Amino acid sequence: VGTPAGMSTEARKAVQHRDQADVEFARIVAFSDGVFAIAITLLVLALEVPANTDDLWQALHGLEDDFFAYAVSFAVVGKFWLSHHRFYSGLERFDNTLMGLNLLYLAWVVLIPFSSELLGEFGDDRAATVVYAANMAAVSATFMVQIIYAYGKGLMKAEAAPQERRFAGPANYVFVAIFLASIAIAFVSVPAAQLTWLAVFLVGHRMADWLDRRL
Amino acid sequence: VGTPAGMSTEARKAVQHRDQADVEFARIVAFSDGVFAIAITLLVLALEVPANTDDLWQALHGLEDDFFAYAVSFAVVGKFWLSHHRFYSGLERFDNTLMGLNLLYLAWVVLIPFSSELLGEFGDDRAATVVYAANMAAVSATFMVQIIYAYGKGLMKAEAAPQERRFAGPANYVFVAIFLASIAIAFVSVPAAQLTWLAVFLVGHRMADWLDRRL
Amino acid sequence: VGTPAGMSTEARKAVQHRDQADVEFARIVAFSDGVFAIAITLLVLALEVPANTDDLWQALHGLEDDFFAYAVSFAVVGKFWLSHHRFYSGLERFDNTLMGLNLLYLAWVVLIPFSSELLGEFGDDRAATVVYAANMAAVSATFMVQIIYAYGKGLMKAEAAPQERRFAGPANYVFVAIFLASIAIAFVSVPAAQLTWLAVFLVGHRMADWLDRRL
Amino acid sequence: VGTPAGMSTEARKAVQHRDQADVEFARIVAFSDGVFAIAITLLVLALEVPANTDDLWQALHGLEDDFFAYAVSFAVVGKFWLSHHRFYSGLERFDNTLMGLNLLYLAWVVLIPFSSELLGEFGDDRAATVVYAANMAAVSATFMVQIIYAYGKGLMKAEAAPQERRFAGPANYVFVAIFLASIAIAFVSVPAAQLTWLAVFLVGHRMADWLDRRL
Repeated sequence: VGTPAGMSTEARKAVQHRDQADVEFARIVAFSDGVFAIAITLLVLALEVPANTDDLWQALHGLEDDFFAYAVSFAVVGKFWLSHHRFYSGLERFDNTLMGLNLLYLAWVVLIPFSSELLGEFGDDRAATVVYAANMAAVSATFMVQIIYAYGKGLMKAEAAPQERRFAGPANYVFVAIFLASIAIAFVSVPAAQLTWLAVFLVGHRMADWLDRRL
Repeated sequence: VGTPAGMSTEARKAVQHRDQADVEFARIVAFSDGVFAIAITLLVLALEVPANTDDLWQALHGLEDDFFAYAVSFAVVGKFWLSHHRFYSGLERFDNTLMGLNLLYLAWVVLIPFSSELLGEFGDDRAATVVYAANMAAVSATFMVQIIYAYGKGLMKAEAAPQERRFAGPANYVFVAIFLASIAIAFVSVPAAQLTWLAVFLVGHRMADWLDRRL
Repeated sequence: VGTPAGMSTEARKAVQHRDQADVEFARIVAFSDGVFAIAITLLVLALEVPANTDDLWQALHGLEDDFFAYAVSFAVVGKFWLSHHRFYSGLERFDNTLMGLNLLYLAWVVLIPFSSELLGEFGDDRAATVVYAANMAAVSATFMVQIIYAYGKGLMKAEAAPQERRFAGPANYVFVAIFLASIAIAFVSVPAAQLTWLAVFLVGHRMADWLDRRL
Repeated sequence: VGTPAGMSTEARKAVQHRDQADVEFARIVAFSDGVFAIAITLLVLALEVPANTDDLWQALHGLEDDFFAYAVSFAVVGKFWLSHHRFYSGLERFDNTLMGLNLLYLAWVVLIPFSSELLGEFGDDRAATVVYAANMAAVSATFMVQIIYAYGKGLMKAEAAPQERRFAGPANYVFVAIFLASIAIAFVSVPAAQLTWLAVFLVGHRMADWLDRRL
């Protein structure tokens, strides 16, 4: 695309090679984005329109837990997407292992509409809370593994900003830890476990900064 | 992508930087478009194929309200997409806050298939009409906030055509106002509230022009 | 992207303008493709997994009509997509009217999973056959209107190959005619009406060639 | 995009031609990727949230087969996507026949969520196992046909790496053979047939290498 006319054959080949790798990379990113976009949109399917009812206000009121689950899950999936987005924009190149890890990660992302619907239907149930937290922990953990692998293999861009490194690193350990901790907490108190999730939004990055200074 | 061979290192870096920002931007736009495409296509799921019936014509006739809701919602989501499309094509750059606002906006867009199905099932019910209007008002309002933010932060292109400014600005205040007004009207007359929505298509832009001359 | 370094300001602006129009155009095409991809994939939702049954072979045999509807609809939507694809690749530019027509067209495309499920459930019913044919006629007709508009407004590329013109023109009149005719035929014989649809694949292009020589 | 200013008219036309073909190609690939992304995400719809229950742990335990089917299908569709991805990145150009074959291939890919749900519901049933294996065999076979066609017509890039050739060739014969064999095995033992599928992941490439040395 736009190969300048006066280039040598070698230079042209090198550009073509880079172009092709770019296309490859763009496809993987587009596929991931597509899966995210579909998964986040399928969340709406958990909101079931009430069957014939005399009092629709009442019936909608009964969907309160479903709306709560929708809001939390949309925010969480949105945050996961932003992290994925940022991580992949810092990648210089990828390999087959990273693609496999990414598919494993997406398999957990795609499960979120199920866990979210479960939480909406059985909001005060321990099992639903544990499944939801476990799903989120698995997403965070498989993301963390991708990051560790990519840094270990030197797949990241040299100029990746320190902020991105911080974001990509400790913040995710904190996420995994929060979701795993909430599983344990759920066996004591279900509402307390669900409140823990808010910590992802409230203190996640502050704890990451704190960890960053120590590590 | 087509970096000319005879460029200085600084120039190449600058182009790469712009290229990378373009890729980032393209991903956000593509993600939004994906969510729109899925949400608009999920509208069809509200059209439930009748169960075993002796008279299919009769049964299809009973879906009249569903088809009406489908048509209105497709037109409305299409219009929202066109507005979003036009607004983002006028953006010079974006920041994290705008991305967060956009996700909040998409969270309301994704709810439309639910509100639309509700309207199809309970077309003459006040609650369904209010929920639908509230959903639309929330979409319009979160879009308006994005526009105000982007202009305030100077994220728009300098050469953004005056027509785009007009479109992005007052037209959206009018949309929010129409949908909020229809909520109030619904408590007097449900059909009148639903008729109000047509104003978005009929007088929306004329009122925007009128407002534009006054402001 | 990759504006060469030694360009004059005017030349750069012109390239940027073309770039921006290209991005706009790409978004519309990508949105349409997304809607097509989702609509074609939603066809699978019409295939309902049988509830608890003692004889699954028997139950799957009962889905015969659903599989037939799936196969026909996948082929038809695929064909519509190829036509859309080819038409848009011959477009030089677009305007707001064409975007509106395209949305109207997509609104009929998105209905296909519903019509297809209806046909699968009520395969030998006149109403289902008429709805399906009417849906297809509406898709073909709104596509034809886009083509006529684009040629009339001079939006097509000058170098659009004669083959594309032929494809874009008479072939679509034939499609609309076949689907409209099958509605009439359905009131005499439902199976005959359904057989008519095969003509789209078998004689569509031959009839288009014949028409092309006469017109 | 980015046509250098100092190019001759012929050179500019040639670049434009290549650009346009690239856009065409990108659309087909994006459409296929979209269908894959949606099909893989729809797999989650097979996981039905239990209806009101006293013991949610118990109810979730009853979904064991569904989770197994989800995991297997996600892995298989992911693998199919990687193969499709790699094959198309090795393509130099395409023609109408290849597009038709690709649509036929996608028609089988889109069926996977149905077959997968069937397997989840009727995991120990011969019919479900046969349908699943037949679906997978059809995907592999229509992919194989694309590869044979593309090599036969000389549509592949000259510089396509030997590894890609190996991957594109014998590995797929092995996949078709494994899935066809598992249909036969299912008539003796259903669990044995399902175990056969693991061979796709475990020995698929080793057998492909072995075949490669012989052929």
